[in-house]
Amino acid sequence: MKSVIIVGGGLVGALHACFMAQRGFKVDLYEMRPDIRTLEVVRGRSINLSLSARGREALRRVGLEDIVVQTGIPMYARMIHDVDGTRRPIPYGKKDQYIMSVDRRHLNEVLLTEAEKVPNVTMHFEHKVMECDFDKGTVSFRKNDGSVVTATADLIVGCDGAFSGVRQQIMKKTLFDYEQVFIPHGYMELNMPPAAGDHFAMEVNYLHIWARNEFMMIALPNQDKTYTCTLFMPFDIFRTLTTKEAVRKFFQDTFPDSIPLLGEEYVTETVSTSKALPLISVKCSPYHVKDKAVILGDAAHAMVPFYGQGMNCGFEDCIVFDDLLNKHNNDIGATLAEYTETRSVDAKAIVDLALYNYIEMRESVNSRMFLLRKKLDNFLYWLFPNTWVPLYTSVSFSRIRYHQCIKNKQWQDRVLRRAMYVGVSGLLAVGYCALTRPQYFRLSLPVQLEDFVNRVRPSWLERICF
Amino acid sequence: MKSVIIVGGGLVGALHACFMAQRGFKVDLYEMRPDIRTLEVVRGRSINLSLSARGREALRRVGLEDIVVQTGIPMYARMIHDVDGTRRPIPYGKKDQYIMSVDRRHLNEVLLTEAEKVPNVTMHFEHKVMECDFDKGTVSFRKNDGSVVTATADLIVGCDGAFSGVRQQIMKKTLFDYEQVFIPHGYMELNMPPAAGDHFAMEVNYLHIWARNEFMMIALPNQDKTYTCTLFMPFDIFRTLTTKEAVRKFFQDTFPDSIPLLGEEYVTETVSTSKALPLISVKCSPYHVKDKAVILGDAAHAMVPFYGQGMNCGFEDCIVFDDLLNKHNNDIGATLAEYTETRSVDAKAIVDLALYNYIEMRESVNSRMFLLRKKLDNFLYWLFPNTWVPLYTSVSFSRIRYHQCIKNKQWQDRVLRRAMYVGVSGLLAVGYCALTRPQYFRLSLPVQLEDFVNRVRPSWLERICF
Repeated sequence: MKSVIIVGGGLVGALHACFMAQRGFKVDLYEMRPDIRTLEVVRGRSINLSLSARGREALRRVGLEDIVVQTGIPMYARMIHDVDGTRRPIPYGKKDQYIMSVDRRHLNEVLLTEAEKVPNVTMHFEHKVMECDFDKGTVSFRKNDGSVVTATADLIVGCDGAFSGVRQQIMKKTLFDYEQVFIPHGYMELNMPPAAGDHFAMEVNYLHIWARNEFMMIALPNQDKTYTCTLFMPFDIFRTLTTKEAVRKFFQDTFPDSIPLLGEEYVTETVSTSKALPLISVKCSPYHVKDKAVILGDAAHAMVPFYGQGMNCGFEDCIVFDDLLNKHNNDIGATLAEYTETRSVDAKAIVDLALYNYIEMRESVNSRMFLLRKKLDNFLYWLFPNTWVPLYTSVSFSRIRYHQCIKNKQWQDRVLRRAMYVGVSGLLAVGYCALTRPQYFRLSLPVQLEDFVNRVRPSWLERICF
Repeated sequence: MKSVIIVGGGLVGALHACFMAQRGFKVDLYEMRPDIRTLEVVRGRSINLSLSARGREALRRVGLEDIVVQTGIPMYARMIHDVDGTRRPIPYGKKDQYIMSVDRRHLNEVLLTEAEKVPNVTMHFEHKVMECDFDKGTVSFRKNDGSVVTATADLIVGCDGAFSGVRQQIMKKTLFDYEQVFIPHGYMELNMPPAAGDHFAMEVNYLHIWARNEFMMIALPNQDKTYTCTLFMPFDIFRTLTTKEAVRKFFQDTFPDSIPLLGEEYVTETVSTSKALPLISVKCSPYHVKDKAVILGDAAHAMVPFYGQGMNCGFEDCIVFDDLLNKHNNDIGATLAEYTETRSVDAKAIVDLALYNYIEMRESVNSRMFLLRKKLDNFLYWLFPNTWVPLYTSVSFSRIRYHQCIKNKQWQDRVLRRAMYVGVSGLLAVGYCALTRPQYFRLSLPVQLEDFVNRVRPSWLERICF
């Protein structure tokens, strides 16, 4: 039986443990924090996540899709809140396509419990990774009491998040390309309670967005009828909101409709006293060391949260890895090499897309051109469902490789640009004909079409043309 | 008296110690390795360096220019070695402009000795940085016997190179943008002995280059009449050179004239058994933490060696820092903030230029267009010495800010492109006139010019035109 050490018992680590255990590997999972299932309060990470096609496919493979989906809340559209209080939905895709708000803690618990069902899995909590030896396949951990234990396995998998300790070890000991960037915006979470009568305070099946160009607030629904609101703004703005009065004025000017829903006292108190948290983007390469170690999830490609793909991409990592183990008949060396080669282009693509989508979420949704393009994309998608897959649809509702999603979008942009040139040229040509040779223009129109045109044509057009 | 901890006693650390000591700071310099002045053999870093304007200016400021220049060897031009053995020089600038080959060890020793002359300087060798506290201004070091000592100062300066420990601490504890890239090429050093009669084996005042497009070898002269040759090649090629026979064939095909100079047995033995070393590029930001710490030199901006600016840029860091301390009257907080802001754009520019220059050194020097452009640049530089400073000249023989050097080059490219368009259009216009209105064309030419044109004009041109 081959053995694997999984470092990190968060979402990706726990899911990967399910995959590897079901495949028959001996799994030892090490997590720095205590068992999340035993904690009263979990600190530090966002409360809810949006689950879409890639994540669901991964859950399906380990038999957990149904149990997770039961407790999720579908979101069919963005609900844009304008400053004047107007709300307008922008659907994510077709009528039956939705992303799903799921509870991070619940999902993590389900995954850990599922992994533990397999007898060849052992979990070690409160073990912090210290050092890896990538020749011998050993990892040393420091326990809470200060003692150090060392484990050995055929494969070491780092699923230990954006500030991965395994990645730090790789960086120290191999030739490793690495890039980390903090964006100049931070985030802060607020909790919107249920409305009177224990109802959701807003329309439930939406991801609510207060898009204000330079910054935004979003809200995702939770099972308990609350919303988790997240404020994304430049740190420069957060720094100005240190008094209740400043926060009150800011919310009245920018998110007035949210104040009664959140509670004025709560908002002014929380925002003026809490610290905005930073957002990091990480790209690196390679993901593996020899035939001994690999990093998955945020450890390999932490991204800003604006495409809702952080978890979905991490879960898809597990699928891709699993497929490669199948392809290479559990040969770890061959799997790791191909994993880096295929997965790194896709992970880099979604890291870039996530940064790009911040602009879409906070700014483009306010633009008429953007809305027109969405409608056109949807129409063309309806017309050519296999060819014209809009970017958001391909990212969230398909498993088209991320780098291919970007290529498709670039191709669509080119086609539309050319169509526009052709269209404008055609219109000019027709206009010119109509002006200079009205007799041919009339003759060449089929009779019914001419009748139709005569009926709808505004009189000024007739006066100009004929 | 303000105090500073300098981490790293290499070139930049030792120079910075001179600057800070001469300014009246209490300086404690910590170096991981033993005192270089006490060692028999120094391992790990390249033997010689090219000193140019920025580095010399820094040495001048601490009173060391003369002593260093005395032992250096001026290099006035690149000497290109073609495969057929032809050698052709390409000057670096005007006749009196040169870069200088200096010995790394000698330079480092001169700097350390100079720093120690000031009584407020203490040096601590074999101290490895462990942890920094950027609130308290403390740094802990592990000594060779395993014991840990902690030091406190008003300022912590990390001059500890491309794999800086101080930078690692900054990365762990602050929001820090960071990028490291290993290029797919490695390097290997070879030593070319003096020729019979204790002479230099090649023309001495040149930087010799065997440019082979995909890879190259260079050679810099040393005081002891040897040359240090460095082979820069893709690791993929190095990996094929594991037998003496493979190396012999490779050198015969690509660097045949170097074999008798290096010695066939020495080359085949050394290249087939040595390991090529990697080359790293590092960009990061910010360079400082609050009013407590800053990184200088390779710690902040490691670059590939192809512009010969790694040391020069690090030395210029010390000048820029010193000027800012003057400007801000020794206010460390203000100095650090402005240092990051001004220096990071320049350091990023030279990191990029260094990568770009690898292509110039190994490939462009073989192109006629490149040589033509060099001649044109030199002519225009002679014509407009204040406006048209060629890129290499501005980088190596001036202290024009690095980012401005790039901007100037881009402007020059634009001007030349436009001039070419204008020139071609003009020629076409003249040609058209000559064809259609030969009588005016002949009349409009001044008589001598017409005579001249008549004399040099090839007969076919006449037949076409008239």
